[in-house]
Amino acid sequence: MTHDPAGDAIKALITRNNTKILLIVMDGVGGMRTGQFPQTELESARTPNLDKWARRASLGRAIPAARGVTVGSGPGHLSLFGYNPLLPEHEIGRGVLEAAGIDYRLPPNGVAARGNFATLDKDGNITDRRAGRIPTPEAKPVLEKMQKAVAEPIEGVTVKVMPVKEYRFALVFEGEGIGADLYDTDPQKTGVPSLDPKAKIDTPENAKMVRVATQAIKQMRAAIADEPKANGFNLRGFAKDPGLETFESRFGLRSAAIATYPLYRGVASLCGMDVVKTGDTIASEFETLKQIWNDYDFFFLHIKKTDAMGEDGNRDGKIRIIEEADKAMIALDELKPDVLIITGDHSTPPPMKSHSFHPVPFLLASELCDIDAGTRFTETECDKGTFGTFPSWEIMQLALAHAGRLMKFGS
Amino acid sequence: MTHDPAGDAIKALITRNNTKILLIVMDGVGGMRTGQFPQTELESARTPNLDKWARRASLGRAIPAARGVTVGSGPGHLSLFGYNPLLPEHEIGRGVLEAAGIDYRLPPNGVAARGNFATLDKDGNITDRRAGRIPTPEAKPVLEKMQKAVAEPIEGVTVKVMPVKEYRFALVFEGEGIGADLYDTDPQKTGVPSLDPKAKIDTPENAKMVRVATQAIKQMRAAIADEPKANGFNLRGFAKDPGLETFESRFGLRSAAIATYPLYRGVASLCGMDVVKTGDTIASEFETLKQIWNDYDFFFLHIKKTDAMGEDGNRDGKIRIIEEADKAMIALDELKPDVLIITGDHSTPPPMKSHSFHPVPFLLASELCDIDAGTRFTETECDKGTFGTFPSWEIMQLALAHAGRLMKFGS
Repeated sequence: MTHDPAGDAIKALITRNNTKILLIVMDGVGGMRTGQFPQTELESARTPNLDKWARRASLGRAIPAARGVTVGSGPGHLSLFGYNPLLPEHEIGRGVLEAAGIDYRLPPNGVAARGNFATLDKDGNITDRRAGRIPTPEAKPVLEKMQKAVAEPIEGVTVKVMPVKEYRFALVFEGEGIGADLYDTDPQKTGVPSLDPKAKIDTPENAKMVRVATQAIKQMRAAIADEPKANGFNLRGFAKDPGLETFESRFGLRSAAIATYPLYRGVASLCGMDVVKTGDTIASEFETLKQIWNDYDFFFLHIKKTDAMGEDGNRDGKIRIIEEADKAMIALDELKPDVLIITGDHSTPPPMKSHSFHPVPFLLASELCDIDAGTRFTETECDKGTFGTFPSWEIMQLALAHAGRLMKFGS
Repeated sequence: MTHDPAGDAIKALITRNNTKILLIVMDGVGGMRTGQFPQTELESARTPNLDKWARRASLGRAIPAARGVTVGSGPGHLSLFGYNPLLPEHEIGRGVLEAAGIDYRLPPNGVAARGNFATLDKDGNITDRRAGRIPTPEAKPVLEKMQKAVAEPIEGVTVKVMPVKEYRFALVFEGEGIGADLYDTDPQKTGVPSLDPKAKIDTPENAKMVRVATQAIKQMRAAIADEPKANGFNLRGFAKDPGLETFESRFGLRSAAIATYPLYRGVASLCGMDVVKTGDTIASEFETLKQIWNDYDFFFLHIKKTDAMGEDGNRDGKIRIIEEADKAMIALDELKPDVLIITGDHSTPPPMKSHSFHPVPFLLASELCDIDAGTRFTETECDKGTFGTFPSWEIMQLALAHAGRLMKFGS
């Protein structure tokens, strides 16, 4: 469903009905089988509910962007939502993602950047690029000082300072005639000062943005110069809203997002999903799902901690989270989604302690699915699946098809 | 081999030799494994000949158009013949397909529409969109009355009325300056009158076609007003010949089509294949194959009834047809094709009673094939195949390669 003739032909087939489609994303769920651990976390976990669904499902392996490419959470989720993340028109800048993650939707004349507090020495050189990972409550008064320092518009451009989490914040510029093609001010190392804002492309809009950002940085730095830890900051990912086609226009689905972490709510929101309030636990997310079940056609439910455990190299922890998620899935017996999809936005194998490029286990259960030879939601069983290995951005086509929401092509 | 740079590079590799390629299409052969029937029709059927070929073949699963997309027979076959059916330049209008199916090749200045007889009440509202499915002999005299009513050209445009089957006919307009961008006159429901011809795009050519069609409809309706069942009709799929590149120019193969049903002969003819006369049974189709074996490089043999049984939800019937086809395949032992391909144009699982989006079992046997782990021509075994899941329009590349008809690319 890209901006190509073949994609347009598919889009013309979409129809609506009363089916419900549930996409459960276990972040970074995929693992890798190694000599030391021949069984992955999914294989080692006790998962009676996942097993039950796998036995009546079609399985496969999903590639988020391209074979061998490791994705971040932004592109990983865009792909799950049916937007090929490698296409330029689907690029979401870091700043926009950060703002969207705190439920701030950038206006068309806005430019957002992600801010990271940093600690500077007396010469202005960076000693810590994360300002000792100061906790959120400690960051708050510093951000307030910064906001006061840019209370007045600069060249007609309003500057908004917004807390995100710990040492991270969002900086939003709103005003006419500003561009977003700027380099990061983060030098990506310590012992040197932050870089000055600089345009990637020479245009009057980018030049104005450079002047405004330079002046804003000067005023905000002066206001926090006496802070013990957060006495400096770097800006990354200047960007405008990409104006993605909404999920409803793209797929004819009224959609809701249930996620505990800002970034995932942000991506969902940029695709036009309704972002629903929910609690901090997996159980509370499924509780929320039950409450809104009658109000939407499509539900995205995000489980964060599988990825966090993988990044920590915590194999046992990841197994525990998988088992916790499995327990919560008992709710599905009651909800009976017409199409249930369980997968991840990418793999995060504990041995690598990072996102990886390994294709992600994929499960789709529906009355219309071809029940294949794979019997568990694991790497080994998904390798046997009838879907084979395929791009994640085609998942939505499969979702629609198995929901009876795609008409026949040609006669 | 689409009109893209990669496709052109592949086309440049095509060479000719004396090999014979046989494509057997078992229409709608693919099924789905369900809780109630864990074995599909292919799995349940006794198929000694298919099994024998499968044991020495490479297997896989073919996707006719795109993941999740269910195709009609037209696009399904185009794809098997190596033409990506989602590309606009490969679109074949309903009318053209219908005319081609009765061996009528539309001239460049022609426009064809498919006609369906309908029964109208005294107010002109439709009561039956298929006129009680009147049999072919009953339709014939009615069609003759209609032809007489438009014996004289209208604005220089000749109108030809041609029987197809039962309540279906083809209407062909031939003359200069007529367009084909017209909406169907079929309202797709009963209790309302047929729609008037109307242009989708405002051009002088479409306007002329609307005038001619309106006048022709008026004269033909008047001529059949007293018919008990077929006293009205609807027109669908106004279209011109898409002018597809011929199969021989595309692949360097002299090709023949053996099919009992008009539509399949039609698609083959539009690709420039020679359509050969054959009998009504599978056995007679294989008899025809033997007779023409020395005259061509490529043979398309179509088996219709697997699909018909699937559409009827007749699992046992589909199994029976598969076994009948298997029996006829004993002929292959004698013919010894250099490349044997057995697959379907789409799946038609009896539980769905319709075409479906499930990837189609695919078998290719040749001296050059990599004999994989799959041991039967079934869904489960084809899931193990070395070809994996791939687009049907790439089958012709595999056919040429395994026939030694593709040279090395680069040195």
